[in-house]
Amino acid sequence: MSIAAGDTPARPYVTALARGLSVLKSFDEQHERLTLSEVARIADMPRASARRALLTLQSLGYVNSDGRLFSLSPQVLTLARVYLASSPVPRIAQGFLETLSDSLGESCSLSILHEDEAIYIARSARKRIGSLHRDIGAHLPAYCTSMGRVLLAALPDAEHNAFLSRALLTRYTPHTVTGKADLRAAIAKVR
Amino acid sequence: MSIAAGDTPARPYVTALARGLSVLKSFDEQHERLTLSEVARIADMPRASARRALLTLQSLGYVNSDGRLFSLSPQVLTLARVYLASSPVPRIAQGFLETLSDSLGESCSLSILHEDEAIYIARSARKRIGSLHRDIGAHLPAYCTSMGRVLLAALPDAEHNAFLSRALLTRYTPHTVTGKADLRAAIAKVR
Repeated sequence: MSIAAGDTPARPYVTALARGLSVLKSFDEQHERLTLSEVARIADMPRASARRALLTLQSLGYVNSDGRLFSLSPQVLTLARVYLASSPVPRIAQGFLETLSDSLGESCSLSILHEDEAIYIARSARKRIGSLHRDIGAHLPAYCTSMGRVLLAALPDAEHNAFLSRALLTRYTPHTVTGKADLRAAIAKVR
Repeated sequence: MSIAAGDTPARPYVTALARGLSVLKSFDEQHERLTLSEVARIADMPRASARRALLTLQSLGYVNSDGRLFSLSPQVLTLARVYLASSPVPRIAQGFLETLSDSLGESCSLSILHEDEAIYIARSARKRIGSLHRDIGAHLPAYCTSMGRVLLAALPDAEHNAFLSRALLTRYTPHTVTGKADLRAAIAKVR
């Protein structure tokens, strides 16, 4: 009954699928349009693999290209849509978030703890301008964000301890808590 | 300079990647949790392929499983996030949509015409409840929706004619316009 990464060598793993998803994720705010070479570098894969993935994604409609530069098409959003449509949580939460926003006069977000990150799954906005980074699908490390610490504080003790033992605490600002004892104390304060 | 599907047999196409994306899209409002067999049937692929795709997606964190039933994880939203972060259009439009919503007292959406569908890429909501289906990433056939017809009306004549010649006009309701001449007239009225 032990669950451990790496102890299931026979488990199938389709590298071409993993690479295709990495190619989609190589685009970001600073990289709206990328050449094939740039995608290969950012997604850290051979150029031939990046090319096959990009051309396949283009055939499927997820990527646009002018022949040299590639960019994501809005069809990528339809993937998010399947989660939003199939998962009851964001659907049920939306009404409560709206009510909360109305009574507080503030934007409200709902996030889920997933692989040590807080992923924003629903949101009701008052003034959206300036807070776009906290939109649906945004994901932030749990240990150094208020949203994330609330989620960590709600973990059962065993999971909480497992999180603390595996956590890599990167220093993002001079104020980032990077000591495990300090982080445990900070989360205890939330509890 | 002709562009036609099917005339590029040498173009690489990674079936495993296409199948992985089909597996993600086999979930929807009626299918929140699916067995392996159900995924294979909905995504129309061999059971062994569906299994490899599901286990890979689970390893990558996009799919959750209790061993028998599979469901999408919120990490799927991070794929949408890369489009929203990398594309300037939804970012720039958001402020205008908010202003428009404030002055009209109505929800406003922005969509893009992509492969004959209107895909919703930005939205400012007044009362979101009851209109969740028009959320980001929702996609509707262009020919039979008001949003889609506005987009079709804005096409240059050549593209407009090409759309009409290839369009498959499925009857969704007794009122769906399914005749091409009738559709042309309806779109002309929008113009």
